[in-house]
Amino acid sequence: MIIDCHGHYTTVPEPHNQWRVDQLAAFKAGLPSPAYPEISDAEVIASIEGNQLKLIKERGSDLTIFSPRASHMGHHEGDQAVSLEWTVRCNNMIKRVVDLFPEYFVGVAQLPQSPGADLTASIAELERAVNELGFIGVNLNPDPSGGQWQTLPLTDKYWYPLYEKMVELDVPAMIHVSASCNVNFHATGAHYMNADTTAFMQLIQGDLFKDFPTLRFIIPHGGGAVPYHWGRYRGLADMLKQPSLDTHLMNNVFFDTCVYHQPGIDLLVEVIDNKNILFGSEMIGAVRGIDPQTGHYFDDTKRYIDAAKISQSERESIFEGNVRKVFPRLDAQLEARGL
Amino acid sequence: MIIDCHGHYTTVPEPHNQWRVDQLAAFKAGLPSPAYPEISDAEVIASIEGNQLKLIKERGSDLTIFSPRASHMGHHEGDQAVSLEWTVRCNNMIKRVVDLFPEYFVGVAQLPQSPGADLTASIAELERAVNELGFIGVNLNPDPSGGQWQTLPLTDKYWYPLYEKMVELDVPAMIHVSASCNVNFHATGAHYMNADTTAFMQLIQGDLFKDFPTLRFIIPHGGGAVPYHWGRYRGLADMLKQPSLDTHLMNNVFFDTCVYHQPGIDLLVEVIDNKNILFGSEMIGAVRGIDPQTGHYFDDTKRYIDAAKISQSERESIFEGNVRKVFPRLDAQLEARGL
Repeated sequence: MIIDCHGHYTTVPEPHNQWRVDQLAAFKAGLPSPAYPEISDAEVIASIEGNQLKLIKERGSDLTIFSPRASHMGHHEGDQAVSLEWTVRCNNMIKRVVDLFPEYFVGVAQLPQSPGADLTASIAELERAVNELGFIGVNLNPDPSGGQWQTLPLTDKYWYPLYEKMVELDVPAMIHVSASCNVNFHATGAHYMNADTTAFMQLIQGDLFKDFPTLRFIIPHGGGAVPYHWGRYRGLADMLKQPSLDTHLMNNVFFDTCVYHQPGIDLLVEVIDNKNILFGSEMIGAVRGIDPQTGHYFDDTKRYIDAAKISQSERESIFEGNVRKVFPRLDAQLEARGL
Repeated sequence: MIIDCHGHYTTVPEPHNQWRVDQLAAFKAGLPSPAYPEISDAEVIASIEGNQLKLIKERGSDLTIFSPRASHMGHHEGDQAVSLEWTVRCNNMIKRVVDLFPEYFVGVAQLPQSPGADLTASIAELERAVNELGFIGVNLNPDPSGGQWQTLPLTDKYWYPLYEKMVELDVPAMIHVSASCNVNFHATGAHYMNADTTAFMQLIQGDLFKDFPTLRFIIPHGGGAVPYHWGRYRGLADMLKQPSLDTHLMNNVFFDTCVYHQPGIDLLVEVIDNKNILFGSEMIGAVRGIDPQTGHYFDDTKRYIDAAKISQSERESIFEGNVRKVFPRLDAQLEARGL
């Protein structure tokens, strides 16, 4: 079984996106939010069948862990109430996809983060997503200020109430930023990579997993710059008098395989322990074209895993075993289906 | 001949650093700067002989392109006048090292950048450094706000007067940030990597080298996250309808080898054209310890190049030929010495 741990609903029907535009315009004008549009099942089905599902079948994966479009989370826009209203709409759209295509998708929640707000609303929405919608994980934005980086590091006590709830519900978080409103940072070319690298370094500096030994984070996009600079990070942990990364972080931190060429994946599987690698593609996402060097989609990461010099058992761990361990609620759902 | 393109004077005599502390304290108190201390040649010699020179000899490189300590540039502290005064002191210290050890060191300048200031003072100091001190290049900070990222992208016209001067003087810039005053970004573990990645993506988005076909940038630390994600960047250039990276950037952009483990260097030399790789170690710098996996210093990057699966001629290009091409003033100095 091949489980893609990193998919976003980037192809959501347009009325949903238009409502967001209208919602933000209303907020700026000091008006109440507009009514949310009717979106038919047929529209949802079309948005999936012609896009993700088509590619899933072509590429040969089975199940996608599916969450709202990351670049549209936009935690830096509006306020706590605006973020909550939008988040509920987004998570509900994911729930509809999961209900319409239960064999192919399982849900992960966006949170109603908002700069300056505490995490009360985020915790409540996480509980709703897990307990009522059946979601198995959450996306956590380490920079809800959208490229301004005005919030506190992930190791700060600010985040602890959310971590307590994650531990209680036994769900992992993918550490994933949203759009950038800083002109220096292209969203998917700089802000995403930087956030991945930054998050990992924050975890090196802190002792978060001493306080939360069962907390689990997925750092997406192959861990940003981290595996390529694994020697630097091992050396920095040493210079900061922290334990070796193996024990300090790597029982709790996992990298996905959203690295869009063979040499990058080869480095990832060489440098990072097999148990810490989860299959992911983030399709249909940041890079949608075909690599002229290979004739295949850049983000068809299954091909790179297939071609990597690892054992069949290691490949299966990346495709399925590790994902089921990191997402125990997914494992339970699959077991209940006899999978 | 082995030329290390990336060395900082991290071991500068303590009175120099103490003066900086006093200078900033005086600035905050609204007082004039203190008198700069007498630092003897013996102190300068000791600071080099027991540190960089010892390691240069142990590791077997010949010449180091040497600039002021990057993390101490501190462009975000004080104002334009403070930055200029400090920069002149720092560049003058580099000049003293070069004069005392002309066989081993050649100078690269820090600039007196300052958030909000135009580049007049930076251009004047660059001219002084090149024409009066004999320096061969410059370090350019893409974020003089120190992790706040409040300046404009490197492709903005704001930077053009400096680029015009660089082209006129035929000197390249290493794109190198300084310390971070943003609690989210560890300096050498996050801010450095992020800046490298960010700079490269800014260059993809823009058309800078159309306007400056002979301008040359070195992106240090192995290019941040870029080579590991080379497929992503090739794909993003395509999505942004920019030319292929080969022609769009790679006649003007070079990566150093400050990647502190063998698999990272192996990826770098596999993915990036040989002509775009310059030997660098950044010792004595961010990562000073010994890798328990190899028994050698993490930042002894010569070992990784020696062990990389490349031809002898490719190795020589990384160690010498490419560096001399990117730094024509160095090439001229070496030729004048019959080297």
